Amino acid sequence: MDFKTDIDKSYQQISPYIHRTPILTSQYLDTLSGASLFFKCENFQKMGAFKMRGATNAILQLSTEQQQKGVVTHSSGNFAQALALAAQNLNIPAYIIMPKNAPEVKKKAVKSYGGIITECEPTLEARTTTAAQIKQKKGATFIHPFNDFNVILGNASAGKELLEDAPELDIIVVPVGGGGLISGIALSALTFSSTCTVIGAEPYTVDDAFRSLESGKIEQNSSTDTIADGLKTSLGDITFNIIKNHVRKIIRVNEDEIVEAMQLIWERMKIIIEPSSAVALAAVLKSKKEFVNKKVGILLSGGNVDLLNLPFEK
Amino acid sequence: MDFKTDIDKSYQQISPYIHRTPILTSQYLDTLSGASLFFKCENFQKMGAFKMRGATNAILQLSTEQQQKGVVTHSSGNFAQALALAAQNLNIPAYIIMPKNAPEVKKKAVKSYGGIITECEPTLEARTTTAAQIKQKKGATFIHPFNDFNVILGNASAGKELLEDAPELDIIVVPVGGGGLISGIALSALTFSSTCTVIGAEPYTVDDAFRSLESGKIEQNSSTDTIADGLKTSLGDITFNIIKNHVRKIIRVNEDEIVEAMQLIWERMKIIIEPSSAVALAAVLKSKKEFVNKKVGILLSGGNVDLLNLPFEK
Repeated sequence: MDFKTDIDKSYQQISPYIHRTPILTSQYLDTLSGASLFFKCENFQKMGAFKMRGATNAILQLSTEQQQKGVVTHSSGNFAQALALAAQNLNIPAYIIMPKNAPEVKKKAVKSYGGIITECEPTLEARTTTAAQIKQKKGATFIHPFNDFNVILGNASAGKELLEDAPELDIIVVPVGGGGLISGIALSALTFSSTCTVIGAEPYTVDDAFRSLESGKIEQNSSTDTIADGLKTSLGDITFNIIKNHVRKIIRVNEDEIVEAMQLIWERMKIIIEPSSAVALAAVLKSKKEFVNKKVGILLSGGNVDLLNLPFEK
Repeated sequence: MDFKTDIDKSYQQISPYIHRTPILTSQYLDTLSGASLFFKCENFQKMGAFKMRGATNAILQLSTEQQQKGVVTHSSGNFAQALALAAQNLNIPAYIIMPKNAPEVKKKAVKSYGGIITECEPTLEARTTTAAQIKQKKGATFIHPFNDFNVILGNASAGKELLEDAPELDIIVVPVGGGGLISGIALSALTFSSTCTVIGAEPYTVDDAFRSLESGKIEQNSSTDTIADGLKTSLGDITFNIIKNHVRKIIRVNEDEIVEAMQLIWERMKIIIEPSSAVALAAVLKSKKEFVNKKVGILLSGGNVDLLNLPFEK
């Protein structure tokens, strides 16, 4: 399959609505890792995360009639904000289903981007039922946060930009939650480099992607006990299929390693990233042999953190 | 006096040892201020602050013989780290006099850059005596953190870069402590723009520069009670003279306004700045009329903060 046409077309379509984010480097972290690191700063993306790319692309693939009726999703994280802002930019309604107990700050953020929130009980069933109701009532199109090929194609634009700015990368390391980002990056690496491979990074406590690659079928997480709150979700069938075929391996890290990597990036690079983003650097520092003397891209997926609740310790 | 030759020469000399820092913008903060803001990110400078520029330039103006004997300064802040790193880059010793009660984290930072620390009692007299002793014993040259024309010329390079990248600036806003940064920026504005003016920003609690401009003589601070710990110092005769002649005005802000501006930059721009840097944005947001519809440069002077002791509140 020719992904180049798809990725290029989607990149062209979403470009007016997204930032081309910079690549930063750090002498200190290069020395510490023994590798040359290229940090792709999606923490500087609009609304603070890469999800803006996929959300925008998914909406742009709808017909005018579909767009006018709006889009609906369920998320209490970055995708809710991304879909709300992407819809606002295109002047269409976004219906966001959030659990009643979602933090007030998350609801406020969605509202600030014009999202129309419907609250539901905090169960999978309530979420699905509520989404179906809004689909029927408003005619809105459901957009899945990651298990959607157009969302993945939108996310692929981050990999395209990274490989344009740093074409000699040997490896790109990407945090894995539902797999929407790493799937997009894997398709980009396949398309825009003949040698660059993609490695996933995952917290031990939610290592469903690691176990899925081992067992050959989609595994679920029994715990969601990680600071990397963007990575709690399990894979979908579309993302699992791409990961199975195009991701070389998954490296797992523990919670202390995540916080340490996060603190290194804050202190040394002076940029704000969320814990999920730190998982990729944690993997590089943990498996140094894998990366030494290599040119390594690191996807910093987002920068939305609660400044009143930071994990750093003496 | 022709500053262009001086600034260009010093820029050329220090360039191998400093970063050309990026200019960032923020749609959100543009909307909030009604101005077009261009943030000069010296928080991304080596060792995390603009002081690297002046320290490097001051050392480079010494003769080879002087350099070999080393440099000495007293500082417990960013200048101590800057002089230590600048000296390390040039393979010469840096003697840093620090008060006994300086925070361990500051001493550790100076040591990590190869600085040789001499501790003294926390009084002005002890500091001066100790510096004189080291001057005599080692033959080291004393470098003042700000009241030194070569330090100011080095700092001017930040203004030169800013005006090269954003030549149409109407105003540049700069935080004022001892006045070394704003003096450099004022000389750059004078040299590289025919219209750009410079405005200082200062906490109310340490408003010595504001009062000095009012009274026409150097005023001291009776309090040092501000979160902007880089701005506690009073002006020197060299910096006062430049500020008197080339800085349009000083805007004062209170502590809450500083914290609010700092939080806005962290949350919206996803970059880490120290409280002293936030004072400039706080001034712009406080005196909106002064800046509305203008192109405004904002000097983010540094990013060295203690992540375990942040000022944000609900």
